Amino acid sequence: MSPPAASNGSVSTEKEGPGRLASVYSEVQTSRLNHSLPLPSVLKSSFNIADGPPSSAAGNPEEIAKLFPNVFGQPSAMLVPGDGGLAADQSLRIGVVLSGGQAPGGHNVISGIFDYLQERTKGSTMYGFKGGPAGIMKCKYAELNSEFVYPYRNQGGFDMICSGRDKIETPEQFKQAEETAIKLDLDGLVVIGGDDSNTNACLLAENFRGKNLKTKVIGCPKTIDGDLKCKEVPTSFGFDTACKVYSEMIGNVMTDARSTGKYYHFVRLMGRAASHITLECALQTHPNITIIGEEVSAKKQTLKNVTDYVTDIICKRSKLGYNYGVILIPEGLIDFIPEVQQLIAELNEILAHDVVDEAGVWKKKLRSQSHELFEFLPQAIQEQLLLERDPHGNVQVAKIETEKMLIQMVETELEKRKQEGSYNQQFNGQSHFFGYEGRCGLPSNFDANYCYALGYGAGALLHSGKTGLISSVGNLGAPVEEWTVGGTALTSLMDVERRHGKFKPVIKKAMVELEGAPFQKFASLRDEWALKNRYISPGPVQFVGPTANATNHTLMLELDAQA
Amino acid sequence: MSPPAASNGSVSTEKEGPGRLASVYSEVQTSRLNHSLPLPSVLKSSFNIADGPPSSAAGNPEEIAKLFPNVFGQPSAMLVPGDGGLAADQSLRIGVVLSGGQAPGGHNVISGIFDYLQERTKGSTMYGFKGGPAGIMKCKYAELNSEFVYPYRNQGGFDMICSGRDKIETPEQFKQAEETAIKLDLDGLVVIGGDDSNTNACLLAENFRGKNLKTKVIGCPKTIDGDLKCKEVPTSFGFDTACKVYSEMIGNVMTDARSTGKYYHFVRLMGRAASHITLECALQTHPNITIIGEEVSAKKQTLKNVTDYVTDIICKRSKLGYNYGVILIPEGLIDFIPEVQQLIAELNEILAHDVVDEAGVWKKKLRSQSHELFEFLPQAIQEQLLLERDPHGNVQVAKIETEKMLIQMVETELEKRKQEGSYNQQFNGQSHFFGYEGRCGLPSNFDANYCYALGYGAGALLHSGKTGLISSVGNLGAPVEEWTVGGTALTSLMDVERRHGKFKPVIKKAMVELEGAPFQKFASLRDEWALKNRYISPGPVQFVGPTANATNHTLMLELDAQA
Repeated sequence: MSPPAASNGSVSTEKEGPGRLASVYSEVQTSRLNHSLPLPSVLKSSFNIADGPPSSAAGNPEEIAKLFPNVFGQPSAMLVPGDGGLAADQSLRIGVVLSGGQAPGGHNVISGIFDYLQERTKGSTMYGFKGGPAGIMKCKYAELNSEFVYPYRNQGGFDMICSGRDKIETPEQFKQAEETAIKLDLDGLVVIGGDDSNTNACLLAENFRGKNLKTKVIGCPKTIDGDLKCKEVPTSFGFDTACKVYSEMIGNVMTDARSTGKYYHFVRLMGRAASHITLECALQTHPNITIIGEEVSAKKQTLKNVTDYVTDIICKRSKLGYNYGVILIPEGLIDFIPEVQQLIAELNEILAHDVVDEAGVWKKKLRSQSHELFEFLPQAIQEQLLLERDPHGNVQVAKIETEKMLIQMVETELEKRKQEGSYNQQFNGQSHFFGYEGRCGLPSNFDANYCYALGYGAGALLHSGKTGLISSVGNLGAPVEEWTVGGTALTSLMDVERRHGKFKPVIKKAMVELEGAPFQKFASLRDEWALKNRYISPGPVQFVGPTANATNHTLMLELDAQA
Repeated sequence: MSPPAASNGSVSTEKEGPGRLASVYSEVQTSRLNHSLPLPSVLKSSFNIADGPPSSAAGNPEEIAKLFPNVFGQPSAMLVPGDGGLAADQSLRIGVVLSGGQAPGGHNVISGIFDYLQERTKGSTMYGFKGGPAGIMKCKYAELNSEFVYPYRNQGGFDMICSGRDKIETPEQFKQAEETAIKLDLDGLVVIGGDDSNTNACLLAENFRGKNLKTKVIGCPKTIDGDLKCKEVPTSFGFDTACKVYSEMIGNVMTDARSTGKYYHFVRLMGRAASHITLECALQTHPNITIIGEEVSAKKQTLKNVTDYVTDIICKRSKLGYNYGVILIPEGLIDFIPEVQQLIAELNEILAHDVVDEAGVWKKKLRSQSHELFEFLPQAIQEQLLLERDPHGNVQVAKIETEKMLIQMVETELEKRKQEGSYNQQFNGQSHFFGYEGRCGLPSNFDANYCYALGYGAGALLHSGKTGLISSVGNLGAPVEEWTVGGTALTSLMDVERRHGKFKPVIKKAMVELEGAPFQKFASLRDEWALKNRYISPGPVQFVGPTANATNHTLMLELDAQA
């Protein structure tokens, strides 16, 4: 694990394109590069695999069994101390691919696989497929050696081999993947990705085994959104770092709000499908108001309900003398509001067939509730809905800046209350969106260690001949030494969805559970946070010192609840 | 310097309003609270004051002498080791005020003054004026004791006593300030602020001395913008932390840009008058393009010039296969462009007297260059210029999101080049504004130490009977032990400006010097940064470990150049 000779000074991967030059690293980057990574004790010497009982599926096991005849029902694999029996002179040929959006720690998963191969298998070869799954299909890869991998240790981003959002779906695409597996004589492939990518990994495992190819496939749980998790996979990597980076900024904004005393900061946070990031940031920082999409959806709230909730608290705060505050909103908020979905559907229909006349006659085509909602929206949002469409002609919901929309709606509502005499202050809303800033941060110690163990463990699973499993590292509340390492049958995470008349396997996104410990803790405190100021400033992520090894609230609360 | 007993557990300042509760601090906040602050060795024991030669002014010394008959020409004061002769049993009554926008470290200036009084003067009293200079005029204050001050040690923000933007200007207002000084029997007042606030501090010093009041006034250099500095005051506090927080985010965005390979991130950074923050962040992170307002102004560039400069680099990069990048823009960019100033002036005139007709006949009233520029602006900006006005009916230049404007103009220009055949890629611009996120960050070790020394030194100057000086801590490239401590005549920083037919004293803002070392270094590297990727990710500010005590490039380069 010491740096190879060539990396002292300039590591020239520049010819390859945008490669890293450790010679221009910042002091913190350099200190991270040289930071040694601890391994769980079971990975420090030889091990045996202890298989669990046969697995089932998260739902509709019969259908999943039909879709995965070759890999369904596999037991989970747990690494336990033992004499192993794995041949150290067996050289392996292993590929790795990054799939989907960046998450801090991806480079450490690769480092973990690489180090496993270096340390436990003689003469192995490792390929990094470039630009995501497309790299597998086009057989576009880089051969990974120490010089290539080293500058990325403990560094953020996915730029070592880059990522992509393509999927391997059609029979032709599976054929291309097979050809690559055969051409490179791959013993194994590690797919680092989210729910879709891991489903895809399992389909590849199934396909390779069905075709009698030797190539095994192991998945790794990646997503800053935190919505890929289950009992065996307690968290997805990147969530910890991203939430900490966002929380640093939120804490700073809170201190600013309290110091100036005149702004309401509306902070939109990444996370379109689930609100885990928003919830975790709330637990870290104690904002005055936090909107959790899953709750809005469960309570069938309207946009007006959400606006009123925010406005009510602003009015109550003004009576206490506080005309400032911080409000967290998940990026996917409006996707959680049924009436908004209905309006969008109607708009897409109308825009496809009718002319939008300036006089507004077209609005008569909207159902009355949708019409009412449309009129309730700020003018800028109305225009955006009508004018900006994607290549399919659909309204671009993702482009709506929810935090700005909410500011405008709250402003309008407060104006009303001013006239009614129930509010007499000046409202100043400031908008923020924290997204790109967090997903490529330098991995926290937790993510760095977790990812290294995930990768090292994936190497061990492939070396043991396992396929169709997701690398699973557990007991995360304990010191790294005591973490458990193994693999969980990907099919056990799956259910089916009916699409175009066919069953499709899916790993359901883990949403914020309203009965779960993290939301319950938040719910028990939010009233106090709303009216008193209990702001916490987590500060910048520390890599050394007493605070460096803390993990996140969501994970700890969930682990505590399971214990 | 150890925490008072009451602060173990909950420090209840809640009754006062939005006070801090150390009991809800994050681990990093708590560790900062308990972080001990080093003092320059000259402040560790008794000292003498060595006076320098009489001072002059930065310009028009005769006029400054007339405006400050009682304090003009004072020598600078340097603290040197000595037997002192200051009575330790002399109790002082000292006030402190925070003026203007927040800057990390303000609380440590207050802690420094407080600790000086506690340790060197028996039975002293300290008052914190609330909400800025208005607190002086209205005699609104909190009495500062250990319990009150302790929870704010090494913490960001200005919320201990809050700040404000009022000025003490009229004879009535000076009278109010005198009344407060007399009522509280003040021996001294420390004004923590930027160029205007320090000018104001000097006017107060002059006024108090002119009226034979005993109250002395000492200023402290505060502003994240970094535009209050001179030989004796090498930097203003807060600049270091703010630039580091922004650079962390920029570094993350760079890693993201390189990983996805498809976005141009346009980052607007705080700093309306000068571009020091943008320049420092560029030196820390090596972006592909950086616009420095002072250079745009010196070269009399037009908005079209700036757009072309950006577009040219984007085209060159696309030929190298890089369709991504990071671009830094100072908040005040358009204030630096003469033609924009001209257009705004004409618009203000037209909007005040004419109707803006939809057909656009009103545009004929614009001079031809202004008309051309107006048509060059994106439609959204045109509308913003016409529709959004401040209470005086003027165009709200400050509200223009320069980064979004530039994205649109670059997009339009690239579209043209596509049609001409000189560009054939897809351009995706992403906008960011980093402002509030940085100005209330947890102070870096440098800012924490610098501010503590500034405050402790201000206490020493007041104890020595000095007035009209700005607290000056020097030799900042050396370890804290070796820092010099003293005071510089505020009048020596001043020039006059003619306003409404009268000479007004001003401390001129220190702009980015195009001949200065920081800009020269940037200029020598920017072509390489433009086409190669030399991104640096500074990572989160570290408080312990090998990287914790680094300062910023601007300061170090300027100190080196002076040496």
